[in-house]
Amino acid sequence: LFIGAEGTLGIITAAVLRLVPRPRSVETAFAGVTSPEAALELLGLATERTAGGVTSFELMARMGVETVLKHAAGCRDPLAAVHPWYVLIELSSQARAGLREQLEEILAEGLERGLVTDAAVADSLDQAKMFWRIREMFGETQRYLGGSVKHDISVPVAAVPEFIREANAAVVALIPGCRPLPFGHLGDGNIHYNVSQPVGADKDEFLKRWDEVNAAVFGVVAKLHGSISAEHGIGVLKRDMLPKVKDPVALDLMRTLKRTLDPKGILNPGKVL
Amino acid sequence: LFIGAEGTLGIITAAVLRLVPRPRSVETAFAGVTSPEAALELLGLATERTAGGVTSFELMARMGVETVLKHAAGCRDPLAAVHPWYVLIELSSQARAGLREQLEEILAEGLERGLVTDAAVADSLDQAKMFWRIREMFGETQRYLGGSVKHDISVPVAAVPEFIREANAAVVALIPGCRPLPFGHLGDGNIHYNVSQPVGADKDEFLKRWDEVNAAVFGVVAKLHGSISAEHGIGVLKRDMLPKVKDPVALDLMRTLKRTLDPKGILNPGKVL
Repeated sequence: LFIGAEGTLGIITAAVLRLVPRPRSVETAFAGVTSPEAALELLGLATERTAGGVTSFELMARMGVETVLKHAAGCRDPLAAVHPWYVLIELSSQARAGLREQLEEILAEGLERGLVTDAAVADSLDQAKMFWRIREMFGETQRYLGGSVKHDISVPVAAVPEFIREANAAVVALIPGCRPLPFGHLGDGNIHYNVSQPVGADKDEFLKRWDEVNAAVFGVVAKLHGSISAEHGIGVLKRDMLPKVKDPVALDLMRTLKRTLDPKGILNPGKVL
Repeated sequence: LFIGAEGTLGIITAAVLRLVPRPRSVETAFAGVTSPEAALELLGLATERTAGGVTSFELMARMGVETVLKHAAGCRDPLAAVHPWYVLIELSSQARAGLREQLEEILAEGLERGLVTDAAVADSLDQAKMFWRIREMFGETQRYLGGSVKHDISVPVAAVPEFIREANAAVVALIPGCRPLPFGHLGDGNIHYNVSQPVGADKDEFLKRWDEVNAAVFGVVAKLHGSISAEHGIGVLKRDMLPKVKDPVALDLMRTLKRTLDPKGILNPGKVL
């Protein structure tokens, strides 16, 4: 009940933690893939080979990686050629040895199946950090492309490629020339779906259409039974969108629970509902 | 909110499943250990070596295993000598090879540290099934020892040895000669804490003291911040015990939620609250 309620239903007064062992080995790869569909199939392959061993599986569109490479200090392309999509894969294990071979086998099978077009496995902690820096600068460097309308959505993992395809079509139909730059946690079905303005467009004019772009993207999310707010919550910014995407019965239930648990309305007022 | 509410707050109308890959290899061991403390340390060792690879870790007291071996068809002692406690360990992995070696290494280190006194790793599916049959018949064969007062409790995993020690002392102080037979899911902190009547005692007289035995055991559970109902729920049988173990504020909140979500009292009436 309290997960995702953002403090509107109660206050944390105690926490119980379950500790998990620190991994003994970690391996990181940066791979070019042909499409989000290929990335998804590669994720399935990695999961099937390692079960809980896939600790990160991040998807990135080429244009975003290009922008990072152009603007972020210390980042260079880990791969020689250009690829339309990239994934950053991190495997972790309690075994001291064998994880690198496992990662290489997964990538080799991905190459064989035509999913992966090229890949680099980090040879050092520094190289792994550089792969991560490309991913971490992905959102930040989008400002060099002008205005950007941002979304933090989730859909079932298997529906991510369909979401990207349909959302791209929807936003480009709405604003011809706009540039979708999806990236994020494919392994969790959580995509940061950002849309940059068309080249040469007026930034303010573009940002005025924020709600329209949102509506187009959230329509696809709803169709795929996803959430308009994955890891970043509802807060104030997305509060007024809830009635557009939530079932009225669900919203009514949320309001009833809020009244029951916080009759005086003193818990994080103004958020979520 | 709905987990553990036993249908008293709502009705399941849809479910989303996340599929996990079927393990490629499974290894099973039956080990004699010196004490619940040793079993816990061995669990820590196995978890640290395999992370998510420990898929079962079951604790059994000798007297219960003895009763199984005497009464259950097809079960024989996997170990030559008698040990005060046993654990059934199952490891699962997506790797085709290497899991047996990993299990043997864990047991060898357990032997070295004085936690494990002897162990057998199943050489065939049949042998693994026999190990499991000993565990599965543990509860059922207790009827050969006469009346049994049963509990299904959970405490933090690290507190299981302390729970067993204190609960044993409490029930033996209450009914001298009674025989505690703890067993169950040490890996989850969920122990089936059953107490058999003293040898030669009158079964009905013993079972009349069910509530007293419960109270003694639940006192230890409460002290260790555990739950009086781990995997078997509250239902009708444990409903009247809730006020004795739950904070009045928590109970009041439960009642308020029940009134809010089921004002007409039509959802699984009479259960839990």
